[in-house]
Amino acid sequence: MSFIKSPSLIKPSCGNFFEDFSIGQILKHGVPRTITESDATLYLALTGSRYALYCAETIAHSCGFEKTPLDNFLVFHIAFGKTVNDVSLNAVANLGYADVQFHQPCFAGETLTVSSEVIGLKENSSGKTGVVYVHSSATNQKDQCVLEWKRWVMVKKNDLNAKIAKEFVPSLVEQVDTKNQNLPEQIHFEKWQDFHSDFQIKYTDIKLGDTLFHRDGMTINDSDHSLATRLYQNNARVHFDQNMMDDTPNGKRLIYGGHIISICRALSYNGLGNAMWLSAINGGAHCNPSFSGDTIYCQSKIIGKSDIEGRNDLGLVRIQMLGIKNNTPDKIDSLYQEVNGRKKYHSDVVLDLDYSALMV
Amino acid sequence: MSFIKSPSLIKPSCGNFFEDFSIGQILKHGVPRTITESDATLYLALTGSRYALYCAETIAHSCGFEKTPLDNFLVFHIAFGKTVNDVSLNAVANLGYADVQFHQPCFAGETLTVSSEVIGLKENSSGKTGVVYVHSSATNQKDQCVLEWKRWVMVKKNDLNAKIAKEFVPSLVEQVDTKNQNLPEQIHFEKWQDFHSDFQIKYTDIKLGDTLFHRDGMTINDSDHSLATRLYQNNARVHFDQNMMDDTPNGKRLIYGGHIISICRALSYNGLGNAMWLSAINGGAHCNPSFSGDTIYCQSKIIGKSDIEGRNDLGLVRIQMLGIKNNTPDKIDSLYQEVNGRKKYHSDVVLDLDYSALMV
Amino acid sequence: MSFIKSPSLIKPSCGNFFEDFSIGQILKHGVPRTITESDATLYLALTGSRYALYCAETIAHSCGFEKTPLDNFLVFHIAFGKTVNDVSLNAVANLGYADVQFHQPCFAGETLTVSSEVIGLKENSSGKTGVVYVHSSATNQKDQCVLEWKRWVMVKKNDLNAKIAKEFVPSLVEQVDTKNQNLPEQIHFEKWQDFHSDFQIKYTDIKLGDTLFHRDGMTINDSDHSLATRLYQNNARVHFDQNMMDDTPNGKRLIYGGHIISICRALSYNGLGNAMWLSAINGGAHCNPSFSGDTIYCQSKIIGKSDIEGRNDLGLVRIQMLGIKNNTPDKIDSLYQEVNGRKKYHSDVVLDLDYSALMV
Repeated sequence: MSFIKSPSLIKPSCGNFFEDFSIGQILKHGVPRTITESDATLYLALTGSRYALYCAETIAHSCGFEKTPLDNFLVFHIAFGKTVNDVSLNAVANLGYADVQFHQPCFAGETLTVSSEVIGLKENSSGKTGVVYVHSSATNQKDQCVLEWKRWVMVKKNDLNAKIAKEFVPSLVEQVDTKNQNLPEQIHFEKWQDFHSDFQIKYTDIKLGDTLFHRDGMTINDSDHSLATRLYQNNARVHFDQNMMDDTPNGKRLIYGGHIISICRALSYNGLGNAMWLSAINGGAHCNPSFSGDTIYCQSKIIGKSDIEGRNDLGLVRIQMLGIKNNTPDKIDSLYQEVNGRKKYHSDVVLDLDYSALMV
Repeated sequence: MSFIKSPSLIKPSCGNFFEDFSIGQILKHGVPRTITESDATLYLALTGSRYALYCAETIAHSCGFEKTPLDNFLVFHIAFGKTVNDVSLNAVANLGYADVQFHQPCFAGETLTVSSEVIGLKENSSGKTGVVYVHSSATNQKDQCVLEWKRWVMVKKNDLNAKIAKEFVPSLVEQVDTKNQNLPEQIHFEKWQDFHSDFQIKYTDIKLGDTLFHRDGMTINDSDHSLATRLYQNNARVHFDQNMMDDTPNGKRLIYGGHIISICRALSYNGLGNAMWLSAINGGAHCNPSFSGDTIYCQSKIIGKSDIEGRNDLGLVRIQMLGIKNNTPDKIDSLYQEVNGRKKYHSDVVLDLDYSALMV
Repeated sequence: MSFIKSPSLIKPSCGNFFEDFSIGQILKHGVPRTITESDATLYLALTGSRYALYCAETIAHSCGFEKTPLDNFLVFHIAFGKTVNDVSLNAVANLGYADVQFHQPCFAGETLTVSSEVIGLKENSSGKTGVVYVHSSATNQKDQCVLEWKRWVMVKKNDLNAKIAKEFVPSLVEQVDTKNQNLPEQIHFEKWQDFHSDFQIKYTDIKLGDTLFHRDGMTINDSDHSLATRLYQNNARVHFDQNMMDDTPNGKRLIYGGHIISICRALSYNGLGNAMWLSAINGGAHCNPSFSGDTIYCQSKIIGKSDIEGRNDLGLVRIQMLGIKNNTPDKIDSLYQEVNGRKKYHSDVVLDLDYSALMV
């Protein structure tokens, strides 16, 4: 008998299992969050980001903003973190994101409340897990939608005999429609000065297919990623509980995939420092896990380019951002490798993200 | 001869030894501190705390506050840190806390100044150490007392032949009187919405004796705890100087006990997320040391419950919060074990804290 | 063939090599930066600094400031960080600083823009490297010069056959002239209370030649220094990319020398807690590298003392601050040792900085 035994033992929530979800279910996520100037500063310290618009109030003013806007990647991580407790505490794998739309700029002092609707459910053939599709959205204190996104995740069943009422697999767009990539009404780069971004390449000079290896590497240690993940109040146990992870094949805490995204985005500054405003994440996959001690490198490819009518101060680029660990891309033969007849990502590739950004 | 030799070598303070204290002595502690919004944000990142009142201005407003209040645990650590330089630089062990009273809410922008009165002294039979009892209080920039507490600590003697003028052992209350647990005048939970705290159990549903194992674990690394301890400007050398700690039996820097308190409190959210407002710490002991790499788990037991007259939106609960390292409570037979005929805490138990909180 | 191969591979900037500089060249550095209250709070958490003027608004007011000023060491690191991308990405060694002048106090909310003029170039006899001398200055959003400094750094050549147009070695002052050490017009310590700084020694009591070993040690881990260095947006690869550093003789990431300066300065509080306002850095050298796991100790010597006309509330002291790793100064025989007939710093000495400060 252990000392926890008590006449009245209360079991706190263990999160939802696959059979706990149902199509159309609305999940109102806990712990609304006011994002502060300090979140923005910590984001710089945690990632090394240097996109000038988020670093200097004078530049924000010159780009049409009254205050320095928050980096949409930061806003995304904080909003995403809210969904973990209800959606993915019992996840085996985060399978992907799609259709991440940013409806308006977010500023320090704004409070986000996040909820999700279950839009798809599909049990796996093993009978042990299933895929849950959610459509999540974050609203501010004025009840305006700041961002919304879709995500699917493989979740364990608790009761292997449980059956769900209805299965449905939603169709997800491969790319956020240009019209849904809201140009913040105030944004303009007419007063931009090239030194602001260390004279990086500009929209008018970049071409479809251009590929950039961003050169710098960033090694991640446990304190780094756990600080970031706690800042986002993402409470997935795999990031924090080494005692539990001792028993897993890798024996290490997993780094939150969103931290890898932000590290890659920060590395991208050297080359894409003018791809300033995240307007959409079209899709993404965490191809392999990352652990403490891994050094992350990043390569980007321009996979789309759209002029914006009536604007010659900026354009929209679509970027494939690849994160690679402990290796530089010139030493990798192919993004994919065949393992047991199945096409899989090369084991050094940790991220394949497709996003769109407004570029100076 | 070493190169530090100088015709005029000044020896900076080495802190007070047991014989330097006297009953009734007043210690005005250095480095008054303005607590900022950034301290609050860093506290989230360092601990993973998710108590909703401290995370969202909208919720603070709905609970009657004009601004988001600071978490009293954070306020306690910052105030406590000020006392270290005078009270416990030469401590062998922090023996306990008692009677920690929070007199009023504290907000970002307020400045705390801390002083202590020596209220007890008792030399140990070894003649090498003695116990120092202090009553500390922190006042804000308007000279209002924000919090006060008692603490006793075993301190080394420097001169083993030194004698102190007078010994005295104060009697300490076992529990802060309910009337000293000041209900902040503005606080109310009438507009509380259950999703704010992920639908955790409420005051009306929790019962005396209820025990909760909070499930999540948090592994602490050296950068985590040293960042937190520096933030609190606690300058005890044992937390920072690995070169010195190499020569100790454990060979590692000690984690500041207050960081363990905050980690346990953050873990408690899952289950006690409605136990929102820390109104008192009745007592506490750091049962065993923690080191980098330890994973902390937490179990709570409801050991008191008091309705508040005229209020049905909240009540007062008294909680025994246990911190356990590298083990879950179900694997521990008993909180205590006998070592050489003496009852001691189980070697995996790192914290036994008794606190009171206002609960939704 | 690697998968990075692309019909249009763009190579982002690799920084300037020795032959890319020319005398008189002006470098406008990227990423202007607004320094926030959160930078100041993080600076406390990263360094453990306790100089009271920067910790409490009440004290700042009593010293004549309307708002809490930023610590000039923090301001220096942020300004310095901006120059790395253009000046020292291909540095072999940071050889020294001189003539660092702080023209006016800096406050949270101010935005710094930094530029440098190349004032000296000297190729080394090896033909593989050369020394670049720059004069850098940071201006605020009102175009006022906040600080300026000189720095020289050994930079690799890319093309060993390249020749530079003109060589020139500037003469650098050994000490910032007292008249260039601007006394902030508002600063006074007439209302100073000795407990603010834990009753540290005062200007009137300290003597030329006084030497202080500051007792405390601070062990630095990788997350600590990389957080600090990212906060300063210093993007030198040697601090971040462990995969690259695996192939170096020490096999470890280098700790940014500025972090060592700030750790030493924070350690100096115990003894020099009244040496409050950094008015100049006269010169400095990073004598040996530091790595994760090193414990830093600090010793200071008073090498100058100047009364300020008409002021008896403060005076100017000149301090030699030595940083020592994994050893205390009493175990070191001499600051220098002879290696192969050349006088070199003792291998445990990591910093020799000469600065001036206004002292209470």
